[in-house]
Amino acid sequence: MPRLDRIEAGHYRIPLPEVLTDSTHGAMADFELVTCRVRDADGAEGVGYTYTVGRNGGAVHHILAREIAELAAGQDAERIEALWQQIWWGLHYGGRGGPAVLAQSAFDIALWDLKARRAGVALWRLLGGHDPRVPCYAGGIDLDLSAEELLRQTDGNLARGFRAIKMKVGRPRLSEDVAKLAAMRAHLGEGFPLMVDANMRWTADAAIRAARAFAPHDPYWLEEPTPPEDVAGHARVLREGGVPVASGENLRSLWDFQALIAAGGVSFPEPDVTNCGGVTAFMKIAHLAEAFHLPVTSHGAHDVTVQLLAACPNRSYLEAHGFGLDRYIAEPLRIEEGMAVAPDRPGHGIGFDWAGLEKVWA
Amino acid sequence: MPRLDRIEAGHYRIPLPEVLTDSTHGAMADFELVTCRVRDADGAEGVGYTYTVGRNGGAVHHILAREIAELAAGQDAERIEALWQQIWWGLHYGGRGGPAVLAQSAFDIALWDLKARRAGVALWRLLGGHDPRVPCYAGGIDLDLSAEELLRQTDGNLARGFRAIKMKVGRPRLSEDVAKLAAMRAHLGEGFPLMVDANMRWTADAAIRAARAFAPHDPYWLEEPTPPEDVAGHARVLREGGVPVASGENLRSLWDFQALIAAGGVSFPEPDVTNCGGVTAFMKIAHLAEAFHLPVTSHGAHDVTVQLLAACPNRSYLEAHGFGLDRYIAEPLRIEEGMAVAPDRPGHGIGFDWAGLEKVWA
Repeated sequence: MPRLDRIEAGHYRIPLPEVLTDSTHGAMADFELVTCRVRDADGAEGVGYTYTVGRNGGAVHHILAREIAELAAGQDAERIEALWQQIWWGLHYGGRGGPAVLAQSAFDIALWDLKARRAGVALWRLLGGHDPRVPCYAGGIDLDLSAEELLRQTDGNLARGFRAIKMKVGRPRLSEDVAKLAAMRAHLGEGFPLMVDANMRWTADAAIRAARAFAPHDPYWLEEPTPPEDVAGHARVLREGGVPVASGENLRSLWDFQALIAAGGVSFPEPDVTNCGGVTAFMKIAHLAEAFHLPVTSHGAHDVTVQLLAACPNRSYLEAHGFGLDRYIAEPLRIEEGMAVAPDRPGHGIGFDWAGLEKVWA
Repeated sequence: MPRLDRIEAGHYRIPLPEVLTDSTHGAMADFELVTCRVRDADGAEGVGYTYTVGRNGGAVHHILAREIAELAAGQDAERIEALWQQIWWGLHYGGRGGPAVLAQSAFDIALWDLKARRAGVALWRLLGGHDPRVPCYAGGIDLDLSAEELLRQTDGNLARGFRAIKMKVGRPRLSEDVAKLAAMRAHLGEGFPLMVDANMRWTADAAIRAARAFAPHDPYWLEEPTPPEDVAGHARVLREGGVPVASGENLRSLWDFQALIAAGGVSFPEPDVTNCGGVTAFMKIAHLAEAFHLPVTSHGAHDVTVQLLAACPNRSYLEAHGFGLDRYIAEPLRIEEGMAVAPDRPGHGIGFDWAGLEKVWA
């Protein structure tokens, strides 16, 4: 039995190459990275991580270093489902959402990495194995760009191999969003997958109005039209707006997804493996989507997530996101002709530059 | 404008007078208390607190000391609604539930205390003022007690002035719960308000079976029959079990309550002011219940909560809970003939023994 011997947490502040903006989070200059390294009694290792857009990383780190390390010490690293329950219920009263599930996600990713590395296989194979080639889109955080700047950024993304692109919406006036979307559609041509993301900016009625104004420009989906708690609003936007709805980066459990999916509030569920409860929860959410005849997309952490979507027959696009993390990863994910390919290295295949990270310790 | 000048957090471990057990949290030997003290530029002060059943208090403390202190510094302490939004959205991505909303709750309580103390009135008057006398029940955490021990504890509660009592259920065999409930009913007599609390132990079907077995013994309500995410299950238990349902200590926002109430999943919403988002959220939840023709009860923190229920025309019973905190409070809440009386001291009226607390710093 591979007992958990060591659980270590790290907390870093990753500067962004440029300041990013969206309709809800405003200007973001850096991200917090919180890592979790596990080692079992045989010396095998695994690594996981989560991130925040700038706050509560210290709390996440504290939960990993103090609570999860204590709850999981000496446990059988192979029994990930048992550990997941133990941590969920061990932290339950002051836990579940927020920093607690981010911490649990990082730990769970590390356990799956460990398990796959012990087995000597890539995670996507361990999880079932569907197709290592995953279609991928460039997720821009570009609300404040002018139409010209947006087209220039888009040309850069096309040159980098992307064949699907997402842009932000939610400007003070809807006409600004429509004009930028129209310019993007004209630039990219008919049928090019072009997503729009409102980052919870609107009420349901405002989102329906926007969706109807966007519809002639054929957005692939409209993402996070309203806050995540507004399940009924999501369902109205989907039914009345005439555009598919993506949502999920701010849902924090399998049950949050169940409620939104069962209410008919989402066309493209988009879990984030670093905040929905880790690999364990992500795969259940992907299978839940499949059971409801829905594709599954993703948010953030593309380097881990490519492994998960490569195991899902119902996978839609993987989101590729900058976030400045690539420079701390030995072999960052490559995009070729719009496809990401899950590497065949054992585990999820990410090797962090720990010496480089030390310099940005938070 | 009373600008926030100082925001201080404290983290303490409060030993329980005796080890408590329930069906989910197992044995609990101490509680974590996390305090928040605020002072404005005029030197006026307010205090709030939250607690956990043993884990994640460090994370809550970190969020108060680091994130909320930074977000709120220099803001107008009187604009509590604006501050609530600022913190909710400032922490949103890695926030909302779990430790983040516990921290926000403590801060919000402190702001309302400050506001009422500046105004020189008791909080229950500031919040609208209904009736300072609030019916109160003794919330026992007593799953592991035998029937005899339970009756002895009950006699103690009756002697302390309680005229309503809650007992735990969720023993491995339902017949054990039924036998203890029957003994309590025989002891207390017909019509004595006697609640039962399952602490999320069951599936919906198991809870319905239990509710039907309990019904002949006339429980006042069945509390937390299933996990908080199981909204549909709550609604089934309420409809099919034949016993009113209480729930809410594990809901973490106004919107969680809206979803459960609108689904018909609860007869007695029971927010906890220290984890639902503070006084601001508690009062909205109480008013939401009123709009749905429901009474509102409470969980935990009876010393603060008596002030809130004293402002609500639809208040049901206040929960009185030991938790060992009374010995660190200057004038703990008194129960007389089954009623708690909201004190008329300015603010919520709680004065902590800071010197005593220093000795149990976590």
